[in-house]
Amino acid sequence: MATRPPADDRWDAVRPGEVVAALPERIDAGLVFIGRVRTPFVDRDACPRRGALDGPLCRLEVDPPWHPALTGITVGMDLEVLYWMHLARRDLVLQSPRHDATRYGTFALRSPVRPNPIAKSIVRVEAIELGCLQVRGLDCVDGTPLLDLKPDRAQFQPKAPPSPGEAP
Amino acid sequence: MATRPPADDRWDAVRPGEVVAALPERIDAGLVFIGRVRTPFVDRDACPRRGALDGPLCRLEVDPPWHPALTGITVGMDLEVLYWMHLARRDLVLQSPRHDATRYGTFALRSPVRPNPIAKSIVRVEAIELGCLQVRGLDCVDGTPLLDLKPDRAQFQPKAPPSPGEAP
Repeated sequence: MATRPPADDRWDAVRPGEVVAALPERIDAGLVFIGRVRTPFVDRDACPRRGALDGPLCRLEVDPPWHPALTGITVGMDLEVLYWMHLARRDLVLQSPRHDATRYGTFALRSPVRPNPIAKSIVRVEAIELGCLQVRGLDCVDGTPLLDLKPDRAQFQPKAPPSPGEAP
Repeated sequence: MATRPPADDRWDAVRPGEVVAALPERIDAGLVFIGRVRTPFVDRDACPRRGALDGPLCRLEVDPPWHPALTGITVGMDLEVLYWMHLARRDLVLQSPRHDATRYGTFALRSPVRPNPIAKSIVRVEAIELGCLQVRGLDCVDGTPLLDLKPDRAQFQPKAPPSPGEAP
């Protein structure tokens, strides 16, 4: 399994009052990276806190086995992108945001530091090449591993019929 | 690593025209289940297609190492819940929704069948017990593994200061 890159103390040091949990040795399920995110943000300092649909053009590079899975994605669609925040430590249960002495539970924060560092962005598709989507709306570091793409719920009409007793 | 339960042909059979990809043998990153979701939906047939905030009361049971990470979650909050769709097959790149002969790329659908079957629901916290949240808004099978909880973006004020050049 890919390991985390070397720690960067400015981001990874445990602050006073923060509490580290022992992460279990076990793995309960395995992720497969389906590709990589290419952005102009070379490190965490360069990342905006939140992506914007008028932000810079970025690329979602999908690995060859998954190219057919892009069928039906069109220019102008909004997609949910799930990615793996591979630089984040995973073991804090109580954390203090920078410049804030208060401690918060990890699940009461949207910090990247969490046991399963999965993040979501909404992006707009600007162009499509073979196995690659040009999009706007990302805020992650260049090279971030890609986990999933799906149409934004707001634009998506379910293809399967409703379940019994469910509104169409 | 936990394996997928036995297949249920009604859900798991490959339909005509669907295309299976060889899932890589490798695991690129490991997930840790932080607890379990308890719902009244005993199997996939019983699940609504989408949870509702006036739906049945469900429980998010968090494992002991992560109890401190719930600090700061309060009754009435809306949370994003990420969970692992452990019953879904992961290897289809082109799929046909039930009763629909059209083929769609997996990334152009919101189907649970995808290489990394991670799902998100928005829930409202109705009550809090030790290590357990009572919530409404879920649509998944009883026993589904829990991956993450975080405050809904719409209600959340970031705790860290903005990055340079970013609006507060």
